[in-house]
Amino acid sequence: MTKYTVAVLGATGLVGQKIMEILEERNFPVKTLKPLASSRTAGETVMFQGKPYIVEEAKPESFEGVDIVLASAGAGVSEKLVPEAVKRGAVVVDNTSHFRLHEDVPLVVAGVNDEALKNHQGIIANPNCSTMQLMPVFKKLHEIGGLQRVIVSTYQSASGAGKEAMDELREVTKEVIASDFKTRGKAEVFQHPLAFNLIPHIDKFMEDGYTKEEFKVVAESRKILGLPNLRITATAVRVPVFVSHSESVTIDFERPVSPEQAVAALKTVPEVTVFERPEDYPTPQQAEGTDPVLVGRIRRDTSNPETGLNMWVVADNLRIGAALNAVKLAEALDRMGLVRKTGKVAEAV
Amino acid sequence: MTKYTVAVLGATGLVGQKIMEILEERNFPVKTLKPLASSRTAGETVMFQGKPYIVEEAKPESFEGVDIVLASAGAGVSEKLVPEAVKRGAVVVDNTSHFRLHEDVPLVVAGVNDEALKNHQGIIANPNCSTMQLMPVFKKLHEIGGLQRVIVSTYQSASGAGKEAMDELREVTKEVIASDFKTRGKAEVFQHPLAFNLIPHIDKFMEDGYTKEEFKVVAESRKILGLPNLRITATAVRVPVFVSHSESVTIDFERPVSPEQAVAALKTVPEVTVFERPEDYPTPQQAEGTDPVLVGRIRRDTSNPETGLNMWVVADNLRIGAALNAVKLAEALDRMGLVRKTGKVAEAV
Repeated sequence: MTKYTVAVLGATGLVGQKIMEILEERNFPVKTLKPLASSRTAGETVMFQGKPYIVEEAKPESFEGVDIVLASAGAGVSEKLVPEAVKRGAVVVDNTSHFRLHEDVPLVVAGVNDEALKNHQGIIANPNCSTMQLMPVFKKLHEIGGLQRVIVSTYQSASGAGKEAMDELREVTKEVIASDFKTRGKAEVFQHPLAFNLIPHIDKFMEDGYTKEEFKVVAESRKILGLPNLRITATAVRVPVFVSHSESVTIDFERPVSPEQAVAALKTVPEVTVFERPEDYPTPQQAEGTDPVLVGRIRRDTSNPETGLNMWVVADNLRIGAALNAVKLAEALDRMGLVRKTGKVAEAV
Repeated sequence: MTKYTVAVLGATGLVGQKIMEILEERNFPVKTLKPLASSRTAGETVMFQGKPYIVEEAKPESFEGVDIVLASAGAGVSEKLVPEAVKRGAVVVDNTSHFRLHEDVPLVVAGVNDEALKNHQGIIANPNCSTMQLMPVFKKLHEIGGLQRVIVSTYQSASGAGKEAMDELREVTKEVIASDFKTRGKAEVFQHPLAFNLIPHIDKFMEDGYTKEEFKVVAESRKILGLPNLRITATAVRVPVFVSHSESVTIDFERPVSPEQAVAALKTVPEVTVFERPEDYPTPQQAEGTDPVLVGRIRRDTSNPETGLNMWVVADNLRIGAALNAVKLAEALDRMGLVRKTGKVAEAV
């Protein structure tokens, strides 16, 4: 078995730490671990396989001799450092939005479109969390009925915005309670206090009135599923939950699909757990810390009873929505012999 | 000016108290107030216009001499007592689900279908909160573009389930924080602990996999708008917010409607406040304690760019969603001369 030198870029972040946890859990063949971060947190200690590692400051030279980079330090950092890693022969699984829609960069969900890895030129993009959990579900349902149109409303947890966001929700909730509900609390990470509130605003607003988060669901789903003309829309809402994203999904099919057919088909997907009885729906707290995508409340759409279904899709956004897929992609690269596939990559991107 | 003897049935409940607050705020012509409740809370004192009133136990005889009943004590109580009130000549605005879909009972949203009041036979039904806030919006949009299909995902606050539900959310949140997030807390009113969680389950499940809450949005919207064949579906989700319901809404129109046209049209509706700039979206905390329905994030539906719009609709579920409409309906009955319209009513229902 080949063992690899693996760099985790953003090793002190929420997803970076989850990546190291999952590398360890899944016994990924790590020869040497290189935890990297910005100068702000470099020097901190992280644990891996029971041993402490000092986090190094990420610089272009940090990637010398690295085989695989799992990057999760923000789009700006990836823009600057990912090409440096590729130039030095590493293959990068990038968890940021920076390269996702680049033509030459495969956007891959393990178990959904692994074949796309074969075309990588050094960079593989990991989709956005709110898109990721939908993909194993959509792929199977497309197979059985043909996706004709998809409408998504999200209920996204604070952890999607990182550690500071979780801290803010925690602190603001404490403050509100300590004040006996007389204060609403501050909002520094979020645009409004999130405690006991909702914020229909994730990432920046674009010209058409959509947020970038909503745009990601639309554009990334089309790319991953290979359906460039898929009719899809999304409304993304932050909710006062710490971990797990939930999504209310309405699908119009090209051919009739009954709830029973959808349940039966989704039961065959290893990445998905189906809740069959209506009252057994998944909650975000149930999904936290688990690997499958949980799907419940599958029922005929009363606005389109012939060819429509509604459903409720929940997953741990830090695991399946980010770190787990990154590690699974590294496993697929290893299995498919695609690590260090090429050195000519740097110029391509 | 005629002054009325007004009974508030469910006077110790969340909506009942809000009704008395709003009767006072809006100077409704109350000659005598009769706060009524079950034996459990009868004997408690409530305040109205600065004076204390002892809550009486609601019995058939309690309605002797009463002109208007504003009922909000649960469907079972309304089933039993509302006909008794009608038999004694009162007109009842009932806030429960019990009579809403009865043929002979007008289901009315003030400002939307007041004309339906003319057909009342003693009972007028107040719609469910999650339906109510959509109606002024849908009515106007139907006028300009024709509603062809509607898809709703709700984000409903704890107060929709009453005072005990709010208390449970408050207590469970305190408990979770006191334990430093080691416990999830109890669930007695709700099906799962609601603190930092979501529950896609409001009211009971029906045979088709929908909850009754979802069914209410479908059936009540059709009845109020007079569109018995409207294609409409809903997914109803409880969120850890105390007051205000939010709804993510996708509408297919019969004719193209641009976001600008929708904004301009909704600006003419007195019950609606439109947030025009994308970044000025309403939050539930903003809506709390206010009377208008707040609508923001109006944008073209990327899955139906020609004739579709998405939007975000927020309102105080205790006011506009319940008590305010009940009082506005009483005002309309007074204005239209429909109080004590008829005595032959009791048998009809």
